[in-house]
Amino acid sequence: MSEAHEVKNPWEQKDQQMEQIKNRMNKIQHKIAIISGKGGVGKSLVTVNLAMGLADNGRVAILDADLTGPCVPKMLGLKGTKMRAGPTGIAPVVGPKGVEVVSMDFLLPNDEAPVIWRGPLKMGAIRQFLGEVAWGEQEFLLVDLPPGTGDESLSILQLLPEMDGVIIVTIPSEVSQAVVKKAITFARKMNVPVFGIVENMSGMICPHCGETINVFSEGGGAKVSEEMNVELLGSIPMDPKVSVDSDAGVPFILNNPDSPASKAFREIIEKIVKKVK
Amino acid sequence: MSEAHEVKNPWEQKDQQMEQIKNRMNKIQHKIAIISGKGGVGKSLVTVNLAMGLADNGRVAILDADLTGPCVPKMLGLKGTKMRAGPTGIAPVVGPKGVEVVSMDFLLPNDEAPVIWRGPLKMGAIRQFLGEVAWGEQEFLLVDLPPGTGDESLSILQLLPEMDGVIIVTIPSEVSQAVVKKAITFARKMNVPVFGIVENMSGMICPHCGETINVFSEGGGAKVSEEMNVELLGSIPMDPKVSVDSDAGVPFILNNPDSPASKAFREIIEKIVKKVK
Repeated sequence: MSEAHEVKNPWEQKDQQMEQIKNRMNKIQHKIAIISGKGGVGKSLVTVNLAMGLADNGRVAILDADLTGPCVPKMLGLKGTKMRAGPTGIAPVVGPKGVEVVSMDFLLPNDEAPVIWRGPLKMGAIRQFLGEVAWGEQEFLLVDLPPGTGDESLSILQLLPEMDGVIIVTIPSEVSQAVVKKAITFARKMNVPVFGIVENMSGMICPHCGETINVFSEGGGAKVSEEMNVELLGSIPMDPKVSVDSDAGVPFILNNPDSPASKAFREIIEKIVKKVK
Repeated sequence: MSEAHEVKNPWEQKDQQMEQIKNRMNKIQHKIAIISGKGGVGKSLVTVNLAMGLADNGRVAILDADLTGPCVPKMLGLKGTKMRAGPTGIAPVVGPKGVEVVSMDFLLPNDEAPVIWRGPLKMGAIRQFLGEVAWGEQEFLLVDLPPGTGDESLSILQLLPEMDGVIIVTIPSEVSQAVVKKAITFARKMNVPVFGIVENMSGMICPHCGETINVFSEGGGAKVSEEMNVELLGSIPMDPKVSVDSDAGVPFILNNPDSPASKAFREIIEKIVKKVK
């Protein structure tokens, strides 16, 4: 596009930024967004554990696009780390299994600082994350989007029209299903393929007596999968160790490889790898 | 303020809208916002059950300000109902115990329709909900805000500077605590009193063996209460019946009045009533 000038007008700047995003994103083979209707369904948990599994298949990066409530750094034991500027752009923070992470959390002075931004500022931050980070060559970029169908999600899907697909995370309760349908319709309206649904918190085995407890009802993932004609990629059972591991910053799938939840994660990862190849 | 003219300029229209909001809101004695850092911590559940308890003390209204993922109607058994325009403004939908509810959900054609709006449109919707709904005389208005510190939360706190206070909902895990601190700082920056923290999903009694399971770790609410110098209003234990009741559209506190969770809710309600009187 246009040559760099001494004085740029805003439109030229924007063109250059789009060009920069295109160049950076061209080096990443597969881009997958993780979305949910409702918050708190374990979207960041799914992102982090999928990243760990996908890292066996090539280089993986995570963009934590939840600007107001970034959780990925804490879950990967990267809290307190900062991103630094290098010769080719902002350098992502390197986490377990070499996964490279970009998050608003790495730019905030402390945990208490809120990001009180309206939409246009968020759009700007997302653009910078995509265009000014030295992502380098990657097999996979996982984008952890904030809940709902607001500014960040809209920005990401508009800026990355070549997105391979979205994974939708939900929990089994009916209250969640109403909201997850909106997320599926949102992805379809944006012309992004829907890879499928991951049902998280799908029943819990009591660690004391071994009986199953359906904490958040049951069957919601299968129901919405059928109603919306979307594949159910898998159901991940609840496990109190998940919360303990997340708090400790250790990916669950690495720390508890033999648990039913980790097995469910690995089956989902296999399906995703097949989908993009 | 200014008289109505035949042709209004945008500034005059905005002034009139602000005047309208002021008039409507003057008839409501106490306004309380329910916020959270992370989503999925049970903010709508807390709102709905607080409303049921507060309804013993006077008329109560709920503004479901989560525009992209409204859950309050489903939880109150009001799905499929529509708001209608009346002579004095849009009429709220009347739910259990006479609680009046306004939600984006009452305006959507179906469950699958997503609200794909950027910030300024959201601000407009919030203004209309506050100014054009025939709220009438109310003792309490509970505002269920979406997770995080984004556009809707910012709009509500700017439009309602006379807010009595905010209640912050969290779960016991550390990952949530980092985000809840942001919400507390956000409320303080907006000069709104913080009534305190409600810790939801605080341990579960196994329905099979009676042992306690700390599904989302433990003690996070107390820890953040101490660190941020905010009162812990109460801890609500998990109960699989909560999800079943929410799905069925029956407020838990009415359906299971003798459960430990309902007792915890009633203690929190007493504290809130004391705070506003």
